[in-house]
Formats: sequence, C-alpha cells, structure tokens
Amino acid sequence: METQSENACFGGVQGVYTHRSSACACDMTFGLFLPEEARDGPVPVLWYLSGLTCTHENAMVKAGAQAWAAEQGIALVFPDTSPRGDDVADDEAYDLGKGAGFYVNAIQTPWAPHFRMWDYVTDELPSLLGDTFAVDLDRQAITGHSMGGHGALTMAMGLKGRFRSVSAFAPISNPTGSDWGRKQLRAYLGEDEAAWAPHDASLCMRAEGFDGPMLIDTGTNDQFLDLLKPEVLAEAVAARRQQATLRLQPGYDHSYFFVSTFMEDHVAFHAEALYA
Amino acid sequence: METQSENACFGGVQGVYTHRSSACACDMTFGLFLPEEARDGPVPVLWYLSGLTCTHENAMVKAGAQAWAAEQGIALVFPDTSPRGDDVADDEAYDLGKGAGFYVNAIQTPWAPHFRMWDYVTDELPSLLGDTFAVDLDRQAITGHSMGGHGALTMAMGLKGRFRSVSAFAPISNPTGSDWGRKQLRAYLGEDEAAWAPHDASLCMRAEGFDGPMLIDTGTNDQFLDLLKPEVLAEAVAARRQQATLRLQPGYDHSYFFVSTFMEDHVAFHAEALYA
Repeated sequence: METQSENACFGGVQGVYTHRSSACACDMTFGLFLPEEARDGPVPVLWYLSGLTCTHENAMVKAGAQAWAAEQGIALVFPDTSPRGDDVADDEAYDLGKGAGFYVNAIQTPWAPHFRMWDYVTDELPSLLGDTFAVDLDRQAITGHSMGGHGALTMAMGLKGRFRSVSAFAPISNPTGSDWGRKQLRAYLGEDEAAWAPHDASLCMRAEGFDGPMLIDTGTNDQFLDLLKPEVLAEAVAARRQQATLRLQPGYDHSYFFVSTFMEDHVAFHAEALYA
Repeated sequence: METQSENACFGGVQGVYTHRSSACACDMTFGLFLPEEARDGPVPVLWYLSGLTCTHENAMVKAGAQAWAAEQGIALVFPDTSPRGDDVADDEAYDLGKGAGFYVNAIQTPWAPHFRMWDYVTDELPSLLGDTFAVDLDRQAITGHSMGGHGALTMAMGLKGRFRSVSAFAPISNPTGSDWGRKQLRAYLGEDEAAWAPHDASLCMRAEGFDGPMLIDTGTNDQFLDLLKPEVLAEAVAARRQQATLRLQPGYDHSYFFVSTFMEDHVAFHAEALYA
C-alpha cells in the first residue's frame, strides 16, 4: 500500500492511499479520515459511497464530513466508484464504466474482470482497513450520495448484521425501474432481471428491509428526481414498517451543497447507532 | 450580471455570478453565499480572498465556510484571484498572471490593462454587491488564504475603517522579502520598491497597523513557511502592540484541510466584530 498524502485535519488525519486490488484486478485509491481518537485505539467506521463520475476525492474535499466525524470520534472511508487504469473497460457515457461501477460484481463482457465493486467495498477494502488502521470493524455504518446512496442501501440490506445504521443522500432508489439503473444492470449483470433485484433498494426493502435505523434525505428541487424515484422506496419503507426517517428537503438540489448541508445530521445519526 | 448557478445551501443560497468588470476590463465571476437572514434584509459580509491558482470556486466548495456563516447570519463573498479571458496576459509560471493577481493594480506592461484586482475587490465588486444583494456594506470583515491572506491583511490595513476585523490562513506575510512577492510586485508595479510597501502586510503593520482585531493561523508543517515568512509579521505585530491573535497550529500544512479545520473559529471571530 502506498501513501499518496496525509494532511492534518480537524485534529485527525485525512489520508489517501493506493493499493493493488485483487477484487478489481487493478490499483485502487481510497481516502480515509482518522479522528484524533484513533491514536489511542480502534474507532467506529462510517463508509461514504460516492455518486456517478466521482472518485475517492470528491466527497473527501467537498462534503464537509470530517468536521462532524472528528466531533464524534468516527473514521470515514471514501472508496472510489469504479476500477481504474488503461486496461479497464470504459464507455463514452458518463453513467457506464469508469466512475459508474454501481457497486455490483459484473459478470458480462467487457466489464467482468475489473468491475467488482461489491466485493471490493464489502470484502477486500474492509479487510485491508482492519489490518492496517485503527478501525473497529464491529462498529460500521454506511452512507452515500446518489449512486453511492444506492450502494449504501443495498449493501446495508444485503449484508445482514454488517452495518448498525444506514443513510443516504438523494439515493438512486429503484434502479430496475430507472434509466439510472436498467442500462447499467443489463450491461454488468446481463438480461436476467432476477439477478438485478439484490441491487435495487426498493426491491430489497420489499423483500427483507434493514435491521436498524435508516435516514434518507432528498431535495425537492433535485434535478434528477425522475431518475432517483424516491417515491418507490418510500412506499416500500412504509409498507414494511421499516424503522426509518425519510426527509424531502425544500429547495435543495442534487449537489454537494445539499450533501454538506445535512452531513452533520447524518454523522450524528450514525454516531448514535455506533456508540449505542 | 448573469447568474451561473444558485444552490440551496445551509438554509441560504450559494450563488455564482458573472459580470462585466470595468476595473479589470473583462468578464469576472464570483461566488456569493447569502444566509437565510438575507431574505429579510441586509446582512454583514465576510470577504474570502483565495490563494495562487484558485478561482472563485475553490474555497466555495472546499473551505466549509457556509456552515458557520449560516449559523452566524453572515454573507460570504468569494472573488476570483485574477482577470480572465483569452485577451488577458499570462505567464507560464503558476505564480504570475492568471490565478496570481496578488490583489494589486498593475501599472506595468503587459499586465496593466487587466490586472487591477485591488480596485476590483475594494471598489467595483462591493458596489455591485451593495446594489444587487441584501448585504450591509457598513458591516464588512475580510479573510483569505495564502496570497489571499496577503490581500486581506493589506486591504484591511490600507483601507481605514472599511473592515471591522481581519483574519488570515497561512498568509504571505512579507512579499517584499520573499520569492512569493518580489517577482510579482516587480512585474506588476515596476522596479521602485517604495510602490510595493502598501502591498506587504509586515510593512503595513510597521507603518500603521489595523484598527480592530486580527486573527492569523499558520500550520507548523506548512510546506511554504519559508515563502510565507510569518515571523516577520509576528515581530511587527508585537512591536506595534497590535490587537491580534497569532496561532501556529501543530502539524497542519497549507491545504484546505487546514483551512476548513479552523474556519469555524475565523467565522465566529468575525461575527463577534460584525455584531458588536
């Protein structure tokens, strides 16, 4: 593992690290914020999964999360959104290929050898973090924005007992019914829509739900509401009687100005679960 | 004036606007955060001047200032750092020309016609803001980072009574004695070093000081300490008995991770002066 940078930040350290990923068969880069408390021993971890076109860097510099994570004594992980490198397949569209891994394990050509973001985020990267840094893998929570909100919700519901709490900012909530989803799930997973279901938060909610608290914020002026489909997830949450807070925030759009505005709430929400 | 974007942000609006500048003889773009309180009437203003290579955008998305400005009911202005456009002179070096206006009015060829950032920031832009937005020009404060800290300090001391308080993050503190300064002041202002003095915070401090409170943070691991020369300004502040707090922050570097860490302190410091 190679250290790209380490900057003092809110009493802790914001690091960027690159390592060889076996899941993605390429070099992968991630950001990790460790609060001051990590000097004395393992701290709880909040995963932040980013949206389309992002790398590990966007939320790390724009979401303002470190202020609140430092206050709560929580580590933040910022994984990349896809495999990277010259030999990794890509597409001309911004929403397929690099920057658009959709947090699945691709089985279709030409994506299969590298696009294994599910395994990377849920298996390889946590192991690496646990082996290398002062993080407590028994206390994990997960959040994300847009495509990353989709990833956070599907991982939280798909991996029973892994995460104590889940939240999302403007998540892609029903990808099997959206142009942000159908194209990508077909490309990565093939024509059999049964294989898509574990990667649709609304379908996961209908099937099983989440064993813990859930917080979701979406802006009423989000320019992508037709693609996000919060109404499908809202219906499923209510039908399941899932413990959840769903908030439609008046006037907010899809940008990091929206994300940063509500970041304090989300980190505090997760801290309550992580320190329970 | 053209609105480039307006995003809901911490209950207020983060806008980006472009206008024809007569001072710089080109189109200029700035960011303006207006807190919720601006809907009901004029609010105090905090200027944030950015450093080398930055545009209006860097601090607007990376400094995390809106959270605290919203809490205090203060507007934030993020000007660009130089004139822009195809007909504006530039230099191959990152620290001269575009992105490196140094907050002076150039009188030398080829910079003179456009590089008039002192007039732009102290005269034209405040007038435009006062005419267009709910900002109270009787309650202004100023801060900045690196080259922008230099601008903030020299403007605060050069314009008596304009700003109630001044702060800076890792300011270029003695440009007449630094490679971050001598080259640029010679290029923009000519060989006569007497003309440079009003653009050197340490010389301004020796000459007159500032009629109000001052807060300066610099990281002990700042990779540019030899260029910033905080020790020259510190000596001048102490010699003048200037009301000031100078902090050397252990382990912090020159990055926005440093700036964002102490932004809450700076905004609170200015709020105390603006609401006095």
